[in-house]
Amino acid sequence: MDQIKAYGVLNATQPLGPLQIIRRLIGANDVAINITYCGVCHSDIHQARNEWRNSLYPMVPGHEIVGIVADVGTNVKKFKIGDKVGVGCLVDSCRDCLDCREGLEQFCLKPIFTYNCLEKDNKTLAQGGYSTKIVVDQDFVLRIPDNLPLDQAAPLLCAGITTYSPLHHWNVGPGKRVAIIGLGGLGHMAVKIAHAMKAEVTVLSRTLDKGDDAKRLGSDHVYATNDPKTFEKLSRHFDLIINTVSVKLDWGAYLGLLKRDGCMVLLGVPTDAPELQASPLIMARRSLAGSLIGGIKETQEMLNFCGQHNITSDIELISIDKINEAYERIIKADVKYRFVIDIASLK
Amino acid sequence: MDQIKAYGVLNATQPLGPLQIIRRLIGANDVAINITYCGVCHSDIHQARNEWRNSLYPMVPGHEIVGIVADVGTNVKKFKIGDKVGVGCLVDSCRDCLDCREGLEQFCLKPIFTYNCLEKDNKTLAQGGYSTKIVVDQDFVLRIPDNLPLDQAAPLLCAGITTYSPLHHWNVGPGKRVAIIGLGGLGHMAVKIAHAMKAEVTVLSRTLDKGDDAKRLGSDHVYATNDPKTFEKLSRHFDLIINTVSVKLDWGAYLGLLKRDGCMVLLGVPTDAPELQASPLIMARRSLAGSLIGGIKETQEMLNFCGQHNITSDIELISIDKINEAYERIIKADVKYRFVIDIASLK
Repeated sequence: MDQIKAYGVLNATQPLGPLQIIRRLIGANDVAINITYCGVCHSDIHQARNEWRNSLYPMVPGHEIVGIVADVGTNVKKFKIGDKVGVGCLVDSCRDCLDCREGLEQFCLKPIFTYNCLEKDNKTLAQGGYSTKIVVDQDFVLRIPDNLPLDQAAPLLCAGITTYSPLHHWNVGPGKRVAIIGLGGLGHMAVKIAHAMKAEVTVLSRTLDKGDDAKRLGSDHVYATNDPKTFEKLSRHFDLIINTVSVKLDWGAYLGLLKRDGCMVLLGVPTDAPELQASPLIMARRSLAGSLIGGIKETQEMLNFCGQHNITSDIELISIDKINEAYERIIKADVKYRFVIDIASLK
Repeated sequence: MDQIKAYGVLNATQPLGPLQIIRRLIGANDVAINITYCGVCHSDIHQARNEWRNSLYPMVPGHEIVGIVADVGTNVKKFKIGDKVGVGCLVDSCRDCLDCREGLEQFCLKPIFTYNCLEKDNKTLAQGGYSTKIVVDQDFVLRIPDNLPLDQAAPLLCAGITTYSPLHHWNVGPGKRVAIIGLGGLGHMAVKIAHAMKAEVTVLSRTLDKGDDAKRLGSDHVYATNDPKTFEKLSRHFDLIINTVSVKLDWGAYLGLLKRDGCMVLLGVPTDAPELQASPLIMARRSLAGSLIGGIKETQEMLNFCGQHNITSDIELISIDKINEAYERIIKADVKYRFVIDIASLK
């Protein structure tokens, strides 16, 4: 066992603070990673505060982890000491179900999440990346392309794959018109990736306040959704809409912006379930779908794609003592576009 | 002009009764059809009673039309006098938009419906199949396979294509598990067609009352949806669900019955919009879609498929004077499974 420094919560109501946690000794298939940076995802807040009613404490959040390989187990051939690596939302899965066998571990019914989950021994609490070190089975460790700065690459492990996966699955490419609803942590990654895939990209934001930024990130067009004319002008316009926001929207109005056979993909779960009329689906054979992070194979593919296209996240680097303040700013959508913790500040 | 006998309504509140209507003289591209049978669709009732708030009167309903070619225009090569033909929900479309050019006229924004619509001259009211004769452009006339009895074939023109189209579009075939929600006019056709496509077919009905009938029609399994155990037992079970009912259901619960990447297709529009949680879509990359009748090319393909597999509708043949009674029985779902009017009773 290995005592290491971390930052986390003991219950749903107190702020995050320093914790000591234990990491398992390296096994034959494990990779030990000295964490250098960890991105801050909105779901860290939901879980730290038990907003999904399934939190296990003490909890060290963080699933956008990057670092340097410190040690490898005797069976590990894929990684060596010094490699730049990453860990996302999953550290293991059942490896036996159809989803796992097809490399879609995100849909496994027995996933081991990076934190807020029991490890494979069914008794140790898995702890996340707001910590100095992590030990992970080699099959769930990702390689970070050498040209990507590690701090800016960290958010690719969740925000990157969550947007790459639907764009890839729904065949985005040249000649396709893609709309991105919301320009936050997920949205800004979706714009960069869809643009690199050579689609025509439109950002649909509540106002035009983020218009210049959207274009800088790679969007071809920006429309304000608080202007009813947007919904007339863009009627039957898009092949795919990626909805990155978790607030309750009038899904029917957005479905009307899709061409025949178009699809709107939901990445977030609104607390209040929207009402949905069947007609916008029926009248043009549209669909409404959902997507959840990505599998390990696809996550590596996304990282390689980002390496080729020099895509990283726009980040605000913080020291660990600013994490509680960062949480409050995320809730107010006051970040462009992802906080990343410099783990050196924890050592 | 040609004065002919019909049955229809003068306004939203009175029962159907005899009417005289006028059919255009045959044009160069037209086919004149002596109607022999016309199916009765639930949408006939919605429109006769102005329940969709878009009714045009006087109205002769009926879009499940079959008959015998009585005459053909000078340009007509595809049909000859004496041929067995059918007409469905569409008698023309713009022929210029992408949907029309791709043979998906059902999604054209300027369709000419068989009734409750203006004809291409933009002034004559189109009138449907509760009548002795109809004149239709040859491109919207379908050929009925010789082995199918005309009366039982009539409902294929709407109920048949409405269920064939999504089963075909979503690639139903051997090894696929398909659920059909509701065993009515649409549902019983969906069961027959999915069975002929060699899928494993399950009927999901409120109770098991129609269980024997479902199996006779080709269903492999029947489950009652008023039994909560059904939703546990069939969790993540189906590749495709065809929802033929227009009442408000808990779509989220039904989506849970789909495998990863499965799709539920809506064919009917509930008056009250159901609330929909995003999680059943996100957690297994499922989708909720809609489908609307079918294009002309696909409708002919469906008729040929039904000819090859000897598929027709289970019908109750009525004389025209029973139509008001039939409407009331349709509303009470008291028909197995489609009323068809014997147009000889109108002559």
